[in-house]
Amino acid sequence: MHAQNMDIQKTLRKFKIEVDREIEKQLNIAIADAGKNNTLTADALRHAKRIALAGGKRIRGALLYCGYMGAGGRDKKKIIKAAAAVELAHLFILVHDDIIDHGILRHGKETLHKKFSQKKYTRLSGDDALHFGQSLAIIVGDMFYAILNKMILEAGFQQEATIRGLLQIQKVAMTTAIGQGQDIAIGRAEKTTIQDVFTMYENKTARYTFEGPLRIGMMFAECNNKKLFDQLSLYTLPIGIAFQIQDDILGIFSSEKKLGKSVASDIEEGKNTLMVLKALELSSPEQKKRMGSILGKKKLSEKEIADFKKILIETGAVDYAQKIADKCMIDAKKQIEKSFLPTETKYFLLGLIRYLKNREL
Amino acid sequence: MHAQNMDIQKTLRKFKIEVDREIEKQLNIAIADAGKNNTLTADALRHAKRIALAGGKRIRGALLYCGYMGAGGRDKKKIIKAAAAVELAHLFILVHDDIIDHGILRHGKETLHKKFSQKKYTRLSGDDALHFGQSLAIIVGDMFYAILNKMILEAGFQQEATIRGLLQIQKVAMTTAIGQGQDIAIGRAEKTTIQDVFTMYENKTARYTFEGPLRIGMMFAECNNKKLFDQLSLYTLPIGIAFQIQDDILGIFSSEKKLGKSVASDIEEGKNTLMVLKALELSSPEQKKRMGSILGKKKLSEKEIADFKKILIETGAVDYAQKIADKCMIDAKKQIEKSFLPTETKYFLLGLIRYLKNREL
Repeated sequence: MHAQNMDIQKTLRKFKIEVDREIEKQLNIAIADAGKNNTLTADALRHAKRIALAGGKRIRGALLYCGYMGAGGRDKKKIIKAAAAVELAHLFILVHDDIIDHGILRHGKETLHKKFSQKKYTRLSGDDALHFGQSLAIIVGDMFYAILNKMILEAGFQQEATIRGLLQIQKVAMTTAIGQGQDIAIGRAEKTTIQDVFTMYENKTARYTFEGPLRIGMMFAECNNKKLFDQLSLYTLPIGIAFQIQDDILGIFSSEKKLGKSVASDIEEGKNTLMVLKALELSSPEQKKRMGSILGKKKLSEKEIADFKKILIETGAVDYAQKIADKCMIDAKKQIEKSFLPTETKYFLLGLIRYLKNREL
Repeated sequence: MHAQNMDIQKTLRKFKIEVDREIEKQLNIAIADAGKNNTLTADALRHAKRIALAGGKRIRGALLYCGYMGAGGRDKKKIIKAAAAVELAHLFILVHDDIIDHGILRHGKETLHKKFSQKKYTRLSGDDALHFGQSLAIIVGDMFYAILNKMILEAGFQQEATIRGLLQIQKVAMTTAIGQGQDIAIGRAEKTTIQDVFTMYENKTARYTFEGPLRIGMMFAECNNKKLFDQLSLYTLPIGIAFQIQDDILGIFSSEKKLGKSVASDIEEGKNTLMVLKALELSSPEQKKRMGSILGKKKLSEKEIADFKKILIETGAVDYAQKIADKCMIDAKKQIEKSFLPTETKYFLLGLIRYLKNREL
């Protein structure tokens, strides 16, 4: 492995410890508050904390940190708190997304709605029990949103910077929700174009994972430089799209252990990823028929998963998706190199690109 | 009808027009943004706007306004915008609550998740179609949360007041979510005490409908008087509890037309309201058995609904609940009279109490 790649991993690991400490602290406060009134909600938050701390690379928090430092911010304590808030934003989205996508595992733990559908927590059964778990997960997601806003408001940045940064968080939340809506719509659409998928990746992933955190970090450092913000989109959006494409590939070709969730779930959910759309386009009538019989089917067999993978490879769809991801990363690299960022910030972002390219999950 | 009662209704109606104009404006912006990317989310927001504007008394917005003016605030344009935001907070809660409670109608319109389960919007069917509608409604609720925060951040109050007020909104959102969790927990609990129900009413209704808006309005007017805030809880919480009890009574004894939703829904959802708990306590073995066979059953017949109502009346549970609500209102009135509030604010709050006591929905 590349030496610089080791560096960024080390940086992220060290950073994760500090951010996780803050996440734990904030969720403990919420658990105590909820526990005063009712054990069920406290239990749900406790499990949500377990999921939160069981995984995640803290890329969003690290980008916030990087943007803040790059724009001259110097208060580490404040930005760590804000980084934890941005990670909670991610968790808020995951909790609601897992309901939508029927997710069973997250970071190797049972998803919230799944766990609280168990007999242990409700006397209801079947679909009613599932609805009970989903209801609780909707509420916990909403709580995460409230907690993260609270954390930003309490972080102690300059007042105007707080207002600007938090406003940007709301705008990014709106864009992400629009992206989630597109994701649902694409799932049901008869005709989805590759362009639809790119816009969805941009809205659902690139904005809140890359562009948002970096820009908001700068905003918390009292930076309000439109030119810098515009430039930032030129490299963060391609990184985000590449990241999502890789997520799609890993989501099927990695292992359950590494992913922390089933490799069948994207296929069972019938996700029209870039790779899947390309495979449908390039497949023979026979392959297309086979894909159609597998995509969106619940409880796939090993054979069906293997067949699906085989078609994705044989049609060249995986290569196609990988090439686009690589090209996005190269474009982003060029833009970072010619940007006005301080050398250290550039170094971090280029390191992040290398790390993301080589990641296994 | 009492002349002063007419006054408050007139005030609320006039106020509603201005607040609704702002809600419409903000939702139109969101619809346009979503529409650039995807028609489904835009359609969902369009229907959400229809629900938002089809009903609602704007009590929360009016209390925010009243708190702001009472604490010396003078910028009507800003506080109307914030009032619209507070009403959107209410709608955010309703959208998610309607998923949880299997709501079918809201303000006389189909609920979001119900509408988007239709064939017209998805090629899925049965439970999958329902899940599709619910997924979209989760996202729209999240969007409402983002929009309301954005509106507060953009309203233009003094920066410190903005931060304090918005922070309070997050705290109230947390409390409401805890109350929703309690509501779910109470639904499944074998043993629920009347005290549990009171705490739930306080958390789920009184804080965000009465205490929160009045206090946050004062905060936006740059008031930071702890004594005033403590005093405020002494009358807003009893009003809130009385309001919720009346909602429970009207929820069963009013008409579908006035309620904008089915009179069977609370019974079908198996809601353990104060009135229901008291009826279970006071009922004969035969009545208890009949109640048990009706409460929580789906698709009730006219006969079952009539029997349930009859037991609530005959056991004295309705009288009991009504008496508690009346007592809460009397307590609140006394506290308002001896509070430090300006005369006009007192006048408004006392008028509101009279209005709420006589309301039919």
